[in-house]
Amino acid sequence: MRIDIITVLPELMKSPFEASILKRAQEKGLVEVHFHNLRDYSTNKYKQVDDYQFGGGAGMVLMIEPIDKCISKLKAERDYDEVIYMTPDGETLNQKIANQLSLIGNIIILCGHYKGVDQRVRDTMITREISIGDYVLSGGELGAAVLCDSVIRLLPGVLNDETSALTDTFQDNLLAPPVYTRPRDYKGHTVPEILLSGDFPKIEQWREDRAMERTEQLRPDLLK
Amino acid sequence: MRIDIITVLPELMKSPFEASILKRAQEKGLVEVHFHNLRDYSTNKYKQVDDYQFGGGAGMVLMIEPIDKCISKLKAERDYDEVIYMTPDGETLNQKIANQLSLIGNIIILCGHYKGVDQRVRDTMITREISIGDYVLSGGELGAAVLCDSVIRLLPGVLNDETSALTDTFQDNLLAPPVYTRPRDYKGHTVPEILLSGDFPKIEQWREDRAMERTEQLRPDLLK
Repeated sequence: MRIDIITVLPELMKSPFEASILKRAQEKGLVEVHFHNLRDYSTNKYKQVDDYQFGGGAGMVLMIEPIDKCISKLKAERDYDEVIYMTPDGETLNQKIANQLSLIGNIIILCGHYKGVDQRVRDTMITREISIGDYVLSGGELGAAVLCDSVIRLLPGVLNDETSALTDTFQDNLLAPPVYTRPRDYKGHTVPEILLSGDFPKIEQWREDRAMERTEQLRPDLLK
Repeated sequence: MRIDIITVLPELMKSPFEASILKRAQEKGLVEVHFHNLRDYSTNKYKQVDDYQFGGGAGMVLMIEPIDKCISKLKAERDYDEVIYMTPDGETLNQKIANQLSLIGNIIILCGHYKGVDQRVRDTMITREISIGDYVLSGGELGAAVLCDSVIRLLPGVLNDETSALTDTFQDNLLAPPVYTRPRDYKGHTVPEILLSGDFPKIEQWREDRAMERTEQLRPDLLK
């Protein structure tokens, strides 16, 4: 898998890709992530990439021309399965979408910033618009990092123990059951006896029951 | 506002706080963000902070003792309004929650990692559990960065133009209308005439109509 991220703030996004699982996935050659600074595709000497919006109003808008130049250059080099625009009014990311995207090859992710991008970019160059949730962020960069993390951790070989991902919340539409580790007694707060019993079928049943209970209580919508 | 973030991977989270709006907000003294490496609160010489889960199964669990030590130390120094745990089975973040949190004083944010934290941490130390969406990430770090971004940008004085935040998607339960900037004609794709008319009441009306139209089409749930 190859991911090309177009942004006005590559420096904002670096650290999540240089640590932990995203770093390891790249080192293992399971994914290539490339950052493209939109300013390098500016068409004037001020490296301008945004401008006031037509019709007035607060907030700058990313211009179509630098974005077109950057996407066109990338597309001339290889084929892409999706050109994704991160935006709060896109389709809301969920585990199913992450699973789907983990199966495709090359992706371009365009990060909005300020008031967003010129609508003509969305109308003519974008194949999919994704939101990470119903809230507004300063830009699409953190959203893109979240999207990449949710997808990359699903690539075969990225997690050391792949069964771990399968028991995560959402993979079976259930919230995960509670987990406990040492010590058995911490200031009088003890671990449920069943988990110390060594009776694995019973433990499995207990976990399923707790997962169902929590889901019914906290997220009944997931069971529909 | 003061935010204390407890994590096993502070280096993963650095760059979003060192760029753009989050950087500026800290430089202006509008928010203080402090990172605490959970390993510094480990109780053994291996700096261990996680262990296998009781009852067996894939994935490590963050231990209660280092977390207790870290939270207790912070609480001894000042009062906190919320101790938030980032977890996919928490309450789903939305703009209303971001607005609420932007009005309080001091927050601790605990990032889970691996399989999560010992349930006893959640039962005894956490006041609020927040998820940024229905998908699983490698850890709570990106979730915490997203939460901070959504909240900090709402603090008075952080955005240069505060009316910009008010016209964002979700602030009025409507998706934002499309935006356009120069050039007027890009390879035959033109800007809607109305935005070039200079007739501001009509432009306002056009924007409201487009916002309503997009919301009805893409997110009718927001209108309920």
